[in-house]
Amino acid sequence: MALWEALEAYGRSDAYPMHMPGHKRRGEGAFDWYAMDITEIDGFDNLHDAQGVLKDAMERAARVVGAERSWFLVNGSTCGLLAAVFAAVRPGEKVLAARNCHKAVYHALALRGAVPVWLYPPTEPLGYAGALPLSLVEEALSRDAYAACILTSPTYEGVTSDVAGIVRACRRSGTICIVDEAHGAHLPLGDREDFPESAVSQGADLVIQSLHKTLPSPTQTALLSLCGSRVPAERVETYLGMFETSSPSYPLMAGMDACMEWAEAKGREAMRRYARRLAEFYRKSEALKELAALPPAGRDPGKLLIFDRKFRMTGREIYDILKDEFSIQPEMAAERYALLMTSPCDTDEGFARLWAALTALDKRLGAENVRLPEEDGSLRAFPQNEAVLPMLAALEAPGSVRKVSELTGAEISGEWVTPYPPGIPVLAPGERVGAALPWLKAHREELRIAEIEL
Amino acid sequence: MALWEALEAYGRSDAYPMHMPGHKRRGEGAFDWYAMDITEIDGFDNLHDAQGVLKDAMERAARVVGAERSWFLVNGSTCGLLAAVFAAVRPGEKVLAARNCHKAVYHALALRGAVPVWLYPPTEPLGYAGALPLSLVEEALSRDAYAACILTSPTYEGVTSDVAGIVRACRRSGTICIVDEAHGAHLPLGDREDFPESAVSQGADLVIQSLHKTLPSPTQTALLSLCGSRVPAERVETYLGMFETSSPSYPLMAGMDACMEWAEAKGREAMRRYARRLAEFYRKSEALKELAALPPAGRDPGKLLIFDRKFRMTGREIYDILKDEFSIQPEMAAERYALLMTSPCDTDEGFARLWAALTALDKRLGAENVRLPEEDGSLRAFPQNEAVLPMLAALEAPGSVRKVSELTGAEISGEWVTPYPPGIPVLAPGERVGAALPWLKAHREELRIAEIEL
Repeated sequence: MALWEALEAYGRSDAYPMHMPGHKRRGEGAFDWYAMDITEIDGFDNLHDAQGVLKDAMERAARVVGAERSWFLVNGSTCGLLAAVFAAVRPGEKVLAARNCHKAVYHALALRGAVPVWLYPPTEPLGYAGALPLSLVEEALSRDAYAACILTSPTYEGVTSDVAGIVRACRRSGTICIVDEAHGAHLPLGDREDFPESAVSQGADLVIQSLHKTLPSPTQTALLSLCGSRVPAERVETYLGMFETSSPSYPLMAGMDACMEWAEAKGREAMRRYARRLAEFYRKSEALKELAALPPAGRDPGKLLIFDRKFRMTGREIYDILKDEFSIQPEMAAERYALLMTSPCDTDEGFARLWAALTALDKRLGAENVRLPEEDGSLRAFPQNEAVLPMLAALEAPGSVRKVSELTGAEISGEWVTPYPPGIPVLAPGERVGAALPWLKAHREELRIAEIEL
Repeated sequence: MALWEALEAYGRSDAYPMHMPGHKRRGEGAFDWYAMDITEIDGFDNLHDAQGVLKDAMERAARVVGAERSWFLVNGSTCGLLAAVFAAVRPGEKVLAARNCHKAVYHALALRGAVPVWLYPPTEPLGYAGALPLSLVEEALSRDAYAACILTSPTYEGVTSDVAGIVRACRRSGTICIVDEAHGAHLPLGDREDFPESAVSQGADLVIQSLHKTLPSPTQTALLSLCGSRVPAERVETYLGMFETSSPSYPLMAGMDACMEWAEAKGREAMRRYARRLAEFYRKSEALKELAALPPAGRDPGKLLIFDRKFRMTGREIYDILKDEFSIQPEMAAERYALLMTSPCDTDEGFARLWAALTALDKRLGAENVRLPEEDGSLRAFPQNEAVLPMLAALEAPGSVRKVSELTGAEISGEWVTPYPPGIPVLAPGERVGAALPWLKAHREELRIAEIEL
């Protein structure tokens, strides 16, 4: 079956999408893609030298998110993170980075030849990374000079960090603050009592937002926003011009502009309806006896984390039951929870179906009574690896593929090990295998080892 | 007016597209974009670790173009060129590169820290770059060792080089041959007597083809193909994983797969019809008295270069008349010609309209009789600049923006100067301004100069 046939069949299916993209398979201003798919002919501007209709569109985007400048990205947040790191950091400079950053940040630092110093957020009881403590950042900045500080907020699980505090600490030491807000493009439209604040209004220098994850925009669309003047806009444009296609899709750009038009005209009200729907869901879910929806304190409430209070069912089992029995497609299965993504574009019917599924599953679980499994350490989100070689050097070094079962831990990884989703590296090239060995033994057969004399 | 409204209005207009994309605004298997726009849920594979439906789709693509392996690119040929250069070349290595390469090649070499040695193809009478002479490549390879040799074939104007000969020369000296065939994705489907041969069947190691330029596929889609085993597939995948979005658009991928399905089932026959249509056009155009269509010897006949035999009209004037009076949108205006792009998806009506326009314009020009303008050297396609600093170093160096009128020529450029289209740099960072000064004086007010002691 051709891919388009598989997608059409899925489109016709009854499955309710509790996953990306945020448009929930119903476009704002759905349009005839091919009829609109043109090149840079007269009157249609040039993304890489915008002077007309695309300049206007990007100015609207900047207005919507509250930034000085915003650029449309047609290669997703990936190219925004690459351009941001290249614009803010020079080869050999040190960068303070949260270890739970997306692989795109690792890749950018490796390609740039920057020296990452990793900060490890604590692991929450359900096994995901918590907020990056401000004190960790402040302490690191007091000890050494860093060109930039990079963190993800909100995370895949919706966890937000104190960006305003981190920005203040960065300002004091002349450090550029880059926030991967890929999961937070909707935040600038929300009321403060409903949703966490966006990194843009908290003053981060460069903020990268995926439009498709939580707003009605096509997959692969994103914004890079510049706040303040600590990073020259020309440097950002130089590197966007190098990492982003020179044949950008007009329908993708039109999709972004339609999304921003929607955001400007209807976004705030849609977010209020969305907040009421979420509040009702969390209120009702308090009545669940066996299952639970993690309360949204410190998190974007739009990310629903569903788990068995007694951990009899794994996240994968909850995920599979929702999918196979109730035709609700979750976003991700983690060890202890299923992650469901919502957006301002959900329907009452979708939430009703979810609620029916959860109450049915809750009843089914009621019969059993099993005690909590012992903590075995496998939920430790990030092995704290020892980096002994620059990432790119290890990636490029001669290497050999070895059986994980035969590794001692002293070996140096010659590849990225990045479970997907959520796309956060467990092991980077140039790091000793040691701390990641338990994870590798559980998940991998082989690993490329860099063979290089230190 | 929002971008989508401008595009919809253009879509409703009568303008006939003699420009990219190759689908000519009528999709093969047009589909409901938003309904198909999903993420990597169960059953839909993962572009960056393809095992299922995407693996099958990319295997079909490899079959169609005749490669060992082909990868779908959703960030256009740009990310294919970046990944190819990173896979084939290591930092500090020398690379033999045709000076008329697209800026993406320059960017890749700069980011990689490779040392480009430029080969200058001759300039054809109409002012565009001709074929890269095999003797230039052979001579360079006999004098020094190069990690890779990179050229563009066919070019924007359809010019093809002797890729088979260049591949043989590269093999003898252990040099990887990378061909930017962005304008030649249709070539594998053509009969040899109708169209030039694809670089894939001529044995180039890595070939990058834009699908949207000449085939019915959405803009921003491309293929990177690997032939032979001189470059490890794993290295290609490592770098594609770093340069290409981790949120690839399923509709873009479905568009590529639908294009390959079309190519497999109907491509050869469509190319034969296309060849007949082009042959008829060139045959008829011999009767034009004042205008001319450049004969396609040594070129892909699908690129129509229309010019005034006596150069009374510039390319821009021809372009504007076609557009404004005949509602035919050309692809590009050069100094001496208008470039019109055709594809297997054109219609008889489109060609009839073009023919009517050309005969009308030919008659109008018949009254006048003006002699050829003097050659003033401005058509020399590429100033032969002296590189004195690595590109990235000059891009990153402190600099100042200076008036072009005040430059002596001894200054070192601190930026890319890339007229678009066709996107070929006239001046790269790290090069002395000297040779490019006449061009700069005619086209630019200011230039960023790198201020660095040599």
